Amino acid sequence: METMSPVWPPQLTDTHLEVLVSNITDYQITHGSMLKLLQTDELHTVLSNPVGVTLFPTLFPLELFNQALTLQKVYNKLYAAAGEDQDWLHETLKDLIAIDPLTGALWSIHEEIERKESVQDLILGIFRSDYMLHIDESIRSKTPVLKQVEFNTIACAGGIHSNTVSNMHHYLHRSGTYQLTQEEDIETLNITQPQNNVLDTISSGLAQAHSMYISTSPHKTCVLMVVQPNNFNIADERPIEYALWDKGIPTFRIEWGPDIFLHTQLTEDQTLLYHPPHKTQPLEVSVIYYRAGFQADEYDANGIKMRLRMEYSRAIKCPPVLAHLTTLKKVQQALAVPGALERFLEVDEALSVRKTFVTMYPLDESDRGEQGRKAAMDPASAEQHVLKPSLEGGGHNIYGSDIPLYLEDLPPDNWNTYILQEKITPPAVTNYLMSSTGFYQGPVISELGVFGVCLWRSKKAGTSSRRRVEIVKELDPCCSFKSKNADVDEMSVVKGYGCFDSPALVEMETFVSCSGST
Amino acid sequence: METMSPVWPPQLTDTHLEVLVSNITDYQITHGSMLKLLQTDELHTVLSNPVGVTLFPTLFPLELFNQALTLQKVYNKLYAAAGEDQDWLHETLKDLIAIDPLTGALWSIHEEIERKESVQDLILGIFRSDYMLHIDESIRSKTPVLKQVEFNTIACAGGIHSNTVSNMHHYLHRSGTYQLTQEEDIETLNITQPQNNVLDTISSGLAQAHSMYISTSPHKTCVLMVVQPNNFNIADERPIEYALWDKGIPTFRIEWGPDIFLHTQLTEDQTLLYHPPHKTQPLEVSVIYYRAGFQADEYDANGIKMRLRMEYSRAIKCPPVLAHLTTLKKVQQALAVPGALERFLEVDEALSVRKTFVTMYPLDESDRGEQGRKAAMDPASAEQHVLKPSLEGGGHNIYGSDIPLYLEDLPPDNWNTYILQEKITPPAVTNYLMSSTGFYQGPVISELGVFGVCLWRSKKAGTSSRRRVEIVKELDPCCSFKSKNADVDEMSVVKGYGCFDSPALVEMETFVSCSGST
Repeated sequence: METMSPVWPPQLTDTHLEVLVSNITDYQITHGSMLKLLQTDELHTVLSNPVGVTLFPTLFPLELFNQALTLQKVYNKLYAAAGEDQDWLHETLKDLIAIDPLTGALWSIHEEIERKESVQDLILGIFRSDYMLHIDESIRSKTPVLKQVEFNTIACAGGIHSNTVSNMHHYLHRSGTYQLTQEEDIETLNITQPQNNVLDTISSGLAQAHSMYISTSPHKTCVLMVVQPNNFNIADERPIEYALWDKGIPTFRIEWGPDIFLHTQLTEDQTLLYHPPHKTQPLEVSVIYYRAGFQADEYDANGIKMRLRMEYSRAIKCPPVLAHLTTLKKVQQALAVPGALERFLEVDEALSVRKTFVTMYPLDESDRGEQGRKAAMDPASAEQHVLKPSLEGGGHNIYGSDIPLYLEDLPPDNWNTYILQEKITPPAVTNYLMSSTGFYQGPVISELGVFGVCLWRSKKAGTSSRRRVEIVKELDPCCSFKSKNADVDEMSVVKGYGCFDSPALVEMETFVSCSGST
Repeated sequence: METMSPVWPPQLTDTHLEVLVSNITDYQITHGSMLKLLQTDELHTVLSNPVGVTLFPTLFPLELFNQALTLQKVYNKLYAAAGEDQDWLHETLKDLIAIDPLTGALWSIHEEIERKESVQDLILGIFRSDYMLHIDESIRSKTPVLKQVEFNTIACAGGIHSNTVSNMHHYLHRSGTYQLTQEEDIETLNITQPQNNVLDTISSGLAQAHSMYISTSPHKTCVLMVVQPNNFNIADERPIEYALWDKGIPTFRIEWGPDIFLHTQLTEDQTLLYHPPHKTQPLEVSVIYYRAGFQADEYDANGIKMRLRMEYSRAIKCPPVLAHLTTLKKVQQALAVPGALERFLEVDEALSVRKTFVTMYPLDESDRGEQGRKAAMDPASAEQHVLKPSLEGGGHNIYGSDIPLYLEDLPPDNWNTYILQEKITPPAVTNYLMSSTGFYQGPVISELGVFGVCLWRSKKAGTSSRRRVEIVKELDPCCSFKSKNADVDEMSVVKGYGCFDSPALVEMETFVSCSGST
């Protein structure tokens, strides 16, 4: 006699699919789970589309989810510390500083501000550590482990969308829209759906920093959110601004560009004033929250001046330029070098973090770099790797067999701006994806981003260039969660590959029985 | 020396307009202030547009706003009472019953359910009384008074959109996006912007009715929201469903159509059960909230059967069929007949309500009807009137000089299905409108809708066919508010004429100095 194995998510009839999709799009339209279609932007209106989402929460092992959440405290400590260690950062980034325009620009800003005594010792970190599940095929295990994809320290996005989609999945479940029958029942699989309060966490972090800012002028204080112009993904930014207003905190968006010169002013005593249009009274900026300034093309001569004005100020920066620099993949690779973590962490902490690292190589002249270049150029081993620009953010990756050809075309001087990362081989589970590009049903793989929000005090430690970190506030971690067709390399939601999602947490045994290899 | 008179809203530079519009569309996209573009509906996505809105709140006299809110209690009493007086209703509607399909269908349903003893004495009213400002040119007054456009007792819409737009105007003000200078300052004009909690009021009304329902089965209870299929205006309905779920009340949308036969069941003891797809356990319906069933084409043989099944049940109806019938414009006209109000109200109450009536005529064989037909056919007096179908809802009106020609083409037997209403001549104030159809700047006129939410007990009064009303719950009134180009007759938001708005309340003197005639 066959026993029926649990099924997640359920098979959908055409009717059920239609009902589900109509409930989902209605929920999205009424909850700002949207992307603007910028090309339709007219003075009086603009079209928008629901952002790509999964129909059901995607299975994910409870213990690895908890592991990622627990680890965030250690990651916060690690990146806060790395962002206060300018010698180590310089050593790590010096080759990049010489040849990569963004790293060079940021480092020059750092050097410039180092000339003055800092007037603000509080720093706000809003970090996101991204993970995928990984099956180590070499040991023939079917049990996945958690592996870090990257760590982000500036303009971490996706959280608000994930918050909304998590709420949506909860709504669809409790309203019975999933029409679950016995064997696929959430209770049978013992699925838990965690609450995910990203909006509250990020806005609370900004509010706490704001409340700890010591004002020096008679003016009201405000949070300044520096944003990119013409962003079609405003639904991931605007709710933070609204939430801060709801907490009674004046919050102003300012576009990266001439508006910063027009509307801000750095006083003698390094107070940053914001002059809203038409108001006679300026406000004093308590916190600068960067959702811009992370791309090379933002740092022309004016871009550097803008960042300098803000960095010089006594406003609490989220993040300041050194903490910003730790977002580079080069830093991630350097932290993976044996022994590197122990500079910043206790031995047991280092161990717990290192477990989530995949093998990473620089492509420089070092011994390790030599190994990396070999691994990259050999077609068989290239297959097991991803070539990533040492820079911030996702995208622009070269996968597997494309790597040797790509590197051959690249001037050897530039190899250094890439790192080689062992390919993560995630197990696939089933789900349904829908986005403006189409509908998909089949194996999917997920990426878990854990948000770490912490406020630290940076303290001089004698004559050392390395400053001490005292974490003064740390909020409970929360998540972004995205899934994509298992056959696609990229996770970009913007390009329609990735879909916002929420995790359906299950015991490892259940997960393994429901998953397959990709 | 000229003194600068206060200006509202401010003149906008091109830059300010752009900033304002971008803030507005972003707010709308992130708060569900949207209309679906049904023609773009695909399985995996649908486009949507921000709904038409005003850029600023529109000036409105504080005292008339307060008058409308205060009056709502009397209107609730009036319409609850009229909806319990079947003899009066029959007398009022008998001609329409004979020739108008919707009235006929609803009356036949009423007669059918009258054959059984009612098992539910609680009734929920969610009413909306619509007003415009009126300048009586015959007395050369520049001071407007409040005049009722119509009274709605079923599927009252627009409230959720108005709630959102009111919140948006508050946000734009407190965030400084209006860039107000001194002479146009809200404080100079002493403008107040009332809070408008329509979503909370309507969902609380439904929740209170739900909590007072006495269940007869072992099943869980739920609210059933009966909706029209393919509604592009889901943003005015869905939030009510979500709010009820947030209060822990299971709430299900069911489309007017075959689903009602498929998914509901009337038991022997008149309990209405709702069977969600795939669930083995049905739920017992506590409250039926109609957002459908108000159009003639919904009452084919099956439509009548559906409504009958729901009306027979012990669920609390919002509204039951008799209260539904009071929404007809014929009832509004009958209540305006001298002496009619005193049947339902105290003398002082009748007086306060009558003040808001414009002159209305039937077009029937009565003496008053004779006057009406004269007024309609004379080109000069027709100019001062609107011809309205005696039925529910807005639209299909014939204005001024079009009336005589229209009536000439109409078979005289059908004249009876129209009422003639004195044209309301509202003062115009300035505002900016934006919607998917375009941008407008200039004189606008507004319509204020006051929501009355009340729960009453219907009591037998001896042998009289007229039942006694005991109001058991009554919520504070809240509003819808819309404005349109002063040159357009229709207010329809759907057709892109009307825009959702919120009132900027000012002293009468300020209003008069800022307004002009249309």
